[in-house]
Amino acid sequence: MRKKILELLRASGNVPLSGEEISHQLEVSRTAIWKHIQTLKNEGYEIDSVPKKGYILKEAPNRLFPQEILSHLQTKWLGRSICYEDSVASTNNVAKLLANQGCENGLLVVAEEQSGGKGRLSRGWVSPHAKGIWFSVVLKPPFLPQEASKCTLLAAVAVVKAINKLAGVEAAIKWPNDILLMGRKLVGILTEMNAEFGHINYVVIGTGINTNTTVDDFPDEVKPLAVCVAEAAKEPFTRVQLLCDILQNMEDLYEQAVSEGFAPVLAEWRKYSCTLGQEVKVIAPDMTYFGQAVDIDDEGLLMVRKEDGTMEKVVAGDVSIRPAAAKNGAYA
Amino acid sequence: MRKKILELLRASGNVPLSGEEISHQLEVSRTAIWKHIQTLKNEGYEIDSVPKKGYILKEAPNRLFPQEILSHLQTKWLGRSICYEDSVASTNNVAKLLANQGCENGLLVVAEEQSGGKGRLSRGWVSPHAKGIWFSVVLKPPFLPQEASKCTLLAAVAVVKAINKLAGVEAAIKWPNDILLMGRKLVGILTEMNAEFGHINYVVIGTGINTNTTVDDFPDEVKPLAVCVAEAAKEPFTRVQLLCDILQNMEDLYEQAVSEGFAPVLAEWRKYSCTLGQEVKVIAPDMTYFGQAVDIDDEGLLMVRKEDGTMEKVVAGDVSIRPAAAKNGAYA
Repeated sequence: MRKKILELLRASGNVPLSGEEISHQLEVSRTAIWKHIQTLKNEGYEIDSVPKKGYILKEAPNRLFPQEILSHLQTKWLGRSICYEDSVASTNNVAKLLANQGCENGLLVVAEEQSGGKGRLSRGWVSPHAKGIWFSVVLKPPFLPQEASKCTLLAAVAVVKAINKLAGVEAAIKWPNDILLMGRKLVGILTEMNAEFGHINYVVIGTGINTNTTVDDFPDEVKPLAVCVAEAAKEPFTRVQLLCDILQNMEDLYEQAVSEGFAPVLAEWRKYSCTLGQEVKVIAPDMTYFGQAVDIDDEGLLMVRKEDGTMEKVVAGDVSIRPAAAKNGAYA
Repeated sequence: MRKKILELLRASGNVPLSGEEISHQLEVSRTAIWKHIQTLKNEGYEIDSVPKKGYILKEAPNRLFPQEILSHLQTKWLGRSICYEDSVASTNNVAKLLANQGCENGLLVVAEEQSGGKGRLSRGWVSPHAKGIWFSVVLKPPFLPQEASKCTLLAAVAVVKAINKLAGVEAAIKWPNDILLMGRKLVGILTEMNAEFGHINYVVIGTGINTNTTVDDFPDEVKPLAVCVAEAAKEPFTRVQLLCDILQNMEDLYEQAVSEGFAPVLAEWRKYSCTLGQEVKVIAPDMTYFGQAVDIDDEGLLMVRKEDGTMEKVVAGDVSIRPAAAKNGAYA
C-alpha cells in the first residue's frame, strides 16, 4: 500500500495530491491513508502537507527500502523479492540461510550496514551504515558447478558497467572480481556456491560497493587502499538507482550466459579489466612469482607469462599489479 | 573414561578384570568405575559381573558409539572427531552446520537413523534405525572447486573396496557414485560442496550403506531396487568395522590425491565400475539418448558413444544401464 501511495505522489510531482483522491484511487479509507503517510514520514520520507490541497513528496530518505528499489527496478525476476534489513552480520549469510530454506531464484538481500561483512579468503569488509550498497543475490543457475566461478566475473562486469555509466567514472576490474577506482578498492565481490555432483543448488553473489564512505570509516591499514564512488563521481547518483542499474545489468548478462554461454561476459570482462597487460605478482598457494598478465582463458583463469617465458594459469591466490609498472593508476 | 574401561576389558578378554584393578590403572575411585560400568550396560554393552573376580565384556551393542569407532579406527585424522546422534534428519545437514561453524577437517557425523535422509537431486534415502551406516564426513581439501566432483568418485572407491573386502561380496560402482550389488542399490553417496572463487570452503560427503535392511523398510516402488550387504555377505562383519575400513580407505585415497592428483583414484574407479562397457540410457537435462559407456575422462565425466557414433560427455543427469544388455547382473 505504501509503495502505491508513493507511486501516486511521485506521479503527481509538485502538484499536491489530496488524501481524498488517494483514498479514492486506492479504495481505502482516508484514515488509513493518513496512517500510511505518518509511517512514511517516520521512515524518513519528507512529505509536505499543504492545507486544503494535499500531500507533496519532497524527498525520499537515503534508504534502500524495498518500495524504493521496486519503484525503480525494471528487471523481470532479479531482485523482485527483497529481504531488507537495517543491520545484519553479513548479507551473504542471510542469503545462504534463505537459499537453504528454498527461496526463489533472484532473491535480493540488502542491508544498510553489515557488522561482519565478508570478503574473499575469510577477509573482512567494512560496511558502515548507509555509506555503501551491501547486497547479495541468490541465483539458481542451470550452469555446471565447474562454471560457477564465471558468475563472479559476470557480477564484476554488471557492477563496473553500472557505476561507470551512472557516476561517470572509470573504474576497472582487477582479476578476478575486485573493482578499483584510481588504483584503490571500490567494490568487493564474494561469490559462494553450494553444489552437488553435476548440479548447482545455488550461488550467492555478495557485493559491497563503497558509495559515500569516508576515510574515517576504515582501519588505518585500509585507509590508503579504499575509495568510494562519490569521491570521483562526475554525475550525481542515488544508491537506489545504482543498485537497480546493477541488478538490470546482472539479469541481462545472466540471461545472455544461459542462452549463449559465457563468451560475451568474458569479452566484456576483458574490456573493463585493469589486470590484463600489466606486470603482476602472483602469490599462489605453492609459490610466488612475477610475470605479465596476458589474458583470461575460457574458464576465467588468469594467464600469466612468467619472467622465464613460460605460461602459468592462476586458479587461486592473490594477484597484485606491480605499482612501478601500473598504467592508468590502476594498482592494488 | 568409558572408552578406556572398554579398552581394558577388551584387552582382558575372557579373564575377569576386577573393579579394583581398573580403578588402580585409571586412577579413579571404584565407585566411579562401578557407575561407568552401569552406564555402559545401559548403553547396551553386555558386561558379566563374576562375583569376587571382576568384569568380562561379553558383547558390544550394535551401535556406532564414538568409543566403539575410536577403538577400531586406525586413521590419522579422518573420523577422529565424531558427532554421534541416535536420530537426525540428515547427517549431511548436521555436517554442513558444523562445517559452517568452523569444525576441523575430517569430522565424522554418524547417526543410527535419519528421518530425512537425502539422495542426489533432492531424492530421499531410507535410513532405518541401526540397519545401515548413515554417515557424513567434512573435508577441507586443497583442491580447486572444479575438482570437487572427483571427491565423490573417491568416496565411491573407498566404500566399495571396504565392503567387498570385508563382506566378501562383489559390489560395483554405477556412474557417478551409486554402489550396486546384484544389480540393486546398496549405497548412495551425496557430496555437497561449499566454495568461493578458487577455494573450497568444505566438502561434505554423505554416505548411506544398507547393511541389514529388510524389504519391509522400503516403500513399494523401492523394494525391488534395494539390497543390503548382509543379504549377500560371505563373511561376517560389524557396522563399526565396516565404517572404520571405509574411513581408512578414504583417508588413504585422499592423501594420495593430495600428493599425486586424482589419476590413481580414477584408475581404481574404473576397476570397480559396472557402467563402463555397458549399453546405457542417458537422461540429460536437455535430451535423452542411448549409447555405450566407454570411459570416464580426467574430470570423472562419463564418455558415451551414442548410437550415431558421436561421443557425448555426461556432466549431469541420470544414467541407467540397459537391463537387456547388462553383464554381471549389474543394472539399475
